Amino acid sequence: MYANEKYPSKILQEAVEAIGSLPGVGSRSALRLALHLLGQPAENIHQFTAAINRLADDVHYCSQCQMIADSDTCAICADRTRDARTICVVESVRDVMSIEATGQYRGVYHVLGGIISPIDGIGPSDIRIKELVDRIRTTEQMISKIEIILALSGDVEGETTSLYIYRQIEGLGVKVSTLARGLGFGDDLEYADSLTLGRSLLARQPFKP
Amino acid sequence: MYANEKYPSKILQEAVEAIGSLPGVGSRSALRLALHLLGQPAENIHQFTAAINRLADDVHYCSQCQMIADSDTCAICADRTRDARTICVVESVRDVMSIEATGQYRGVYHVLGGIISPIDGIGPSDIRIKELVDRIRTTEQMISKIEIILALSGDVEGETTSLYIYRQIEGLGVKVSTLARGLGFGDDLEYADSLTLGRSLLARQPFKP
Repeated sequence: MYANEKYPSKILQEAVEAIGSLPGVGSRSALRLALHLLGQPAENIHQFTAAINRLADDVHYCSQCQMIADSDTCAICADRTRDARTICVVESVRDVMSIEATGQYRGVYHVLGGIISPIDGIGPSDIRIKELVDRIRTTEQMISKIEIILALSGDVEGETTSLYIYRQIEGLGVKVSTLARGLGFGDDLEYADSLTLGRSLLARQPFKP
Repeated sequence: MYANEKYPSKILQEAVEAIGSLPGVGSRSALRLALHLLGQPAENIHQFTAAINRLADDVHYCSQCQMIADSDTCAICADRTRDARTICVVESVRDVMSIEATGQYRGVYHVLGGIISPIDGIGPSDIRIKELVDRIRTTEQMISKIEIILALSGDVEGETTSLYIYRQIEGLGVKVSTLARGLGFGDDLEYADSLTLGRSLLARQPFKP
């Protein structure tokens, strides 16, 4: 061994540790990836890191919805065919991408950039709730035509955040809705968790043949 | 969608493509990792890329064995307790790490930096075979005491490279050996491939109770 170390080089070790700090990348994968990079021409490595550095240095966020963008207005907010009166409130950039991938939504977004989580020390002022309230207050749309869809996750943090936002905006005269919850389409009753099944029963809907 | 693109930002797309170019990282994992990095403070991203850039810019290779090192002599070659008369010839840095991890080897190494592979356009002059010959020719050790262990993979490229190296050094008076091949320790006969099983029979060894 190399002076009781696992790695023959401090530089290799630090690269493995950096790569291994990514979520879902174990130490063996990190070593494999580091050795792969080590075998590449320096130019390729520099291109790789430059592409990642641009995430830190050059990414824009939409001034309207805080979605990641290449300029100060994202492609969705800039799209005049989208319904600016329907605002879907989500936790993250990824959620916007998930909803866009469904192809079912023609409104706009508001990216909170996080979720209220006392355990992680994230309070209401750490995410963009005030910006949502300001956005509603200063809208050019007729206030009664505005619908806010709270599309947050169904866990405690998501429910807490939805409730908090609801309390902030309930007096403004906008319509507030949330995602339908129930059994997934195609789900088997046998494998459904009992909470979801129970709530799906309580929230049963008219059968449409 | 974003102007018929899958990604809301060109910068995000390029980062995903860079990460997805790593071996074994699919496009979904690449997106997940890129969004994770996007959520990090710029300083963390810069530390991450700096650690990887050092693989391109600051890594040393041992002047003796071409192993990755933090200076011009690697820790193994610098270690006076190791047997400099036994030289294990391997394809890559990773192979050195694998052999070191066994704790069974007290000699030194020679890292070829590749393997002869006509399909990939890699010939004998593209890997460090000449350097091995020169190293043997200029050694301070008594030539008849030197053992060269050809520790290359058992595929066609490995066999070809072993044979080529053997032809280059057979006249120099050194002992040449190769790794034992046979059933793995603990292997079940039932699941062994027939080539390995057949060769293990032909190369049978005295039973040592």
